[in-house]
Amino acid sequence: MESEAALGIESIDTPALVVDLDIMERNMKRMALRAEEAGVRLRPHVKTHKSPWIALKQLQYGAFGITVAKIGEAEVMRKHGITDILIAYPIVGEQKLRRLEKLAAHAEVTVALDSVEAARGISEVGRRLGKTMSLYIDVDTGLQRCGRQPGEETLQLARDIAKLPFVRITGLMTHAGHSYKADSQEERIRISRLEGALLAETKRLIEEKLGLDIPEISVGSTPTSFHCKEVEGITEIRPGTYVFNDATMVSLGLAGIVDCALTIHTTVVSRPSEDRAVIDAGSKTLSSDKGAYTEGYGCIRSAPQVRIDRLSEEHGVMLTAHDFPVSIGGRLEIIPNHVCPTVNLADELIGIRNGKVETVIPVEARGKNK
Amino acid sequence: MESEAALGIESIDTPALVVDLDIMERNMKRMALRAEEAGVRLRPHVKTHKSPWIALKQLQYGAFGITVAKIGEAEVMRKHGITDILIAYPIVGEQKLRRLEKLAAHAEVTVALDSVEAARGISEVGRRLGKTMSLYIDVDTGLQRCGRQPGEETLQLARDIAKLPFVRITGLMTHAGHSYKADSQEERIRISRLEGALLAETKRLIEEKLGLDIPEISVGSTPTSFHCKEVEGITEIRPGTYVFNDATMVSLGLAGIVDCALTIHTTVVSRPSEDRAVIDAGSKTLSSDKGAYTEGYGCIRSAPQVRIDRLSEEHGVMLTAHDFPVSIGGRLEIIPNHVCPTVNLADELIGIRNGKVETVIPVEARGKNK
Repeated sequence: MESEAALGIESIDTPALVVDLDIMERNMKRMALRAEEAGVRLRPHVKTHKSPWIALKQLQYGAFGITVAKIGEAEVMRKHGITDILIAYPIVGEQKLRRLEKLAAHAEVTVALDSVEAARGISEVGRRLGKTMSLYIDVDTGLQRCGRQPGEETLQLARDIAKLPFVRITGLMTHAGHSYKADSQEERIRISRLEGALLAETKRLIEEKLGLDIPEISVGSTPTSFHCKEVEGITEIRPGTYVFNDATMVSLGLAGIVDCALTIHTTVVSRPSEDRAVIDAGSKTLSSDKGAYTEGYGCIRSAPQVRIDRLSEEHGVMLTAHDFPVSIGGRLEIIPNHVCPTVNLADELIGIRNGKVETVIPVEARGKNK
Repeated sequence: MESEAALGIESIDTPALVVDLDIMERNMKRMALRAEEAGVRLRPHVKTHKSPWIALKQLQYGAFGITVAKIGEAEVMRKHGITDILIAYPIVGEQKLRRLEKLAAHAEVTVALDSVEAARGISEVGRRLGKTMSLYIDVDTGLQRCGRQPGEETLQLARDIAKLPFVRITGLMTHAGHSYKADSQEERIRISRLEGALLAETKRLIEEKLGLDIPEISVGSTPTSFHCKEVEGITEIRPGTYVFNDATMVSLGLAGIVDCALTIHTTVVSRPSEDRAVIDAGSKTLSSDKGAYTEGYGCIRSAPQVRIDRLSEEHGVMLTAHDFPVSIGGRLEIIPNHVCPTVNLADELIGIRNGKVETVIPVEARGKNK
C-alpha cells in the first residue's frame, strides 16, 4: 500500500537528479547475473554514483568489492563499512600515501599503478604498516591513457616491483575506455577479446619469467563487461555506468531508454521564440561532457527528437518547433549523455519508486578528486 | 615579516585550485576603476567564484551590489550580509517563489525575466510581501539564449508587465555572451556598441509609449565591460570572469598570463610513454568546458606549448616531447580554459600571497543550481 506521506515527483524542485530505484536494482541484478554466468567477480566502479548507499546495494546484489578512482572516494566508502576496495589510480605524493596508510590499516585495499615510482610509495606504506600491499599493474590495451604496454614492458615493471618489499602483484588490470567509441557489437567484441588476450598473455609471460603467481585479470568499462563470458581468463569486471545507464549507452545499443535509471528533472524557464525554449539545466547540472550521444546535450525522454543544442552554465537551449507543447513552467525529463560527470555535480539524488519519492541519496563522494 | 606558521604551496595536496590574492585584488581594483571612469556601477556576477568571502572583497573594492544566477546563490550571499542582489535568471515555480519571498523580505532583490508568466510569479511575491518588486527585462542582443528581441517585442512585454501590481520595471539588461567568440577588438567594440544602442533605443521606446521611467541599462560579460566607457547610456556592468581571468581571456587578448589569479595545481601521476604524461586533474577538476582557448584543456603555466589533449574524469593526458622535464610526482600549474565551471567543481580555493598559503576560501555557493 502506498504511504500517505509519500510525495509525488511534482514536489521535487528542479533541476534535480532523480533515480528510479526499480530500474537501478534491475540493472544491478542483471550485471551480477552476467558476472555469475561468466564465472567472474563483479567489482563495480562507484564513480558513477559516488554514494555509499548505492555501493552497499551493489554489494547486496552480488558485487564482492568496489572500485574507486581516488583515495577520497575510498575514505567515504570505508566510513560506511565497505572494506574491499580497489583504487584504480596511481597514488603519488606523501600526503596521499599517509592517507592510504590509515585506510589500509582497516581495509583490504588494492592499488593500481603503472610505474616503479608509484610502487615505491606503496612499498613504503606497507613497510610502515608491516603488511604486504596488494598491487595491480595497469596495462594499456588501446586507450592510450595510463598503463604499461602489454608484454615486455609490463614484464619489466613487474620485475622492478618484485624487488620491492611489502608489495605483491596480485593482478593485471586494464580499462578499455575506447570501447565507448566502437561503432558495432563486432568491434566491441574484438576489443573485449583483445584486452583479455593481451592481459592473459602478459600474465603468462610474467608468471613464466619471474615465477610469480598473478591470480587476477581485471577489466573495466560497461561495454566490454557485456562480453566477459566470451573472453577467456578474466577473473574480475569493473563496470560503472551500468547502474544507471545513460544516452551514450542507449546510442551504443547497450541499453534501452527503459533501462535508464537516472534522469534530470528540469523546468522550462524561457520561451524566447518559436524555435527556442530554455530549461533550467545547463552545464552546471548536465555537464558539458557529450559522451558518445551526438544528438545534443542529453535526450529528452518525452521528446527525443528535440535537440538540446547549447549549454551555458545554467541554461539548456533547445531547438523547438512552433508547436512544441511545453510552455514556461512545464517540466521535462532528460537522460544525460554521460551520467558519471552529471552525478559529480549533484549533492543528492532523489530516489523514487512507482513515481513516489522514497528516499534522498547523498552523493557523499562527490568532488573527491584527491 | 613572514609568519613562521605560513605554509608553502608545496604543502597543498593536488589537484587544488589556488588563488593568488594579490592578482585577484588587482583585477578587482582595475575593473572598479574602469567602471568609475565610465561612470557606471559595477555589479559583478559572483558565479565565477561562488564565495561570499570574495564577493565581500569585491564590494569593499568598489562594487555596489552583486549578480547571481540562482536563488540558491542569492541565499548564500544574503547569509553573509550581502543585501543588494540581482538574480539574472527567470524565477519559475512555486517552490522558488516561496524562497524568493523569504529572501526579498530582508534584501533588495531585483529579478530579471523575459516573459509575463515569470512576471506574474514575482507580482504574487510582491503582493504577499506588500512590497513592489524590482524587475529587469532581459533583452536578447545577439546571444540567442534567453531574452526578448529589442524594440517592439520588449515593448509588448513591458506593456503586459506594467499592468501587474507589486512589480516595477527598473531596468533593461542583456548578456552579450557572444562577445567571447569575437575574434578582434573591433568586433568586440561593435558588439558592445550594438548592445548599448539596442538597449538605449528600447528604453526610449518604452518610456515614450508607456510613460514609464526605466533608470537602469545593465550589460554583462567581461569582454564587453572593457568597452563600457565607449558606449552611451549604460548604467551598470555585470562582469564575472575578470576577478580571476582564464585561458579564454588570455586567448582573447583581454588578460595576460600574469593577470590569471586562479591556477590548478596538479601532479604528474603517470608517464606511460615518451610522448605522453598524465596529470591528476581531469574533467572532474578542470571541467570539459573548452571556452575560447583552443589549444587544449587548459594552459600549463610553465610549458604553454605542451597540449592537454584529452580529459577523462580524473586524468589529464598531455602530449609531451621525450625531454619533457617533469617526471612522476612533479607538479604543474594549469590556467583553466573557463574558470567558472572549474570553480563549481571545487569545495574550496586556497588563497596564497607571495607563495604562502594565507587562507582557505570555501566555495559556499558551489552547486547551487536551484
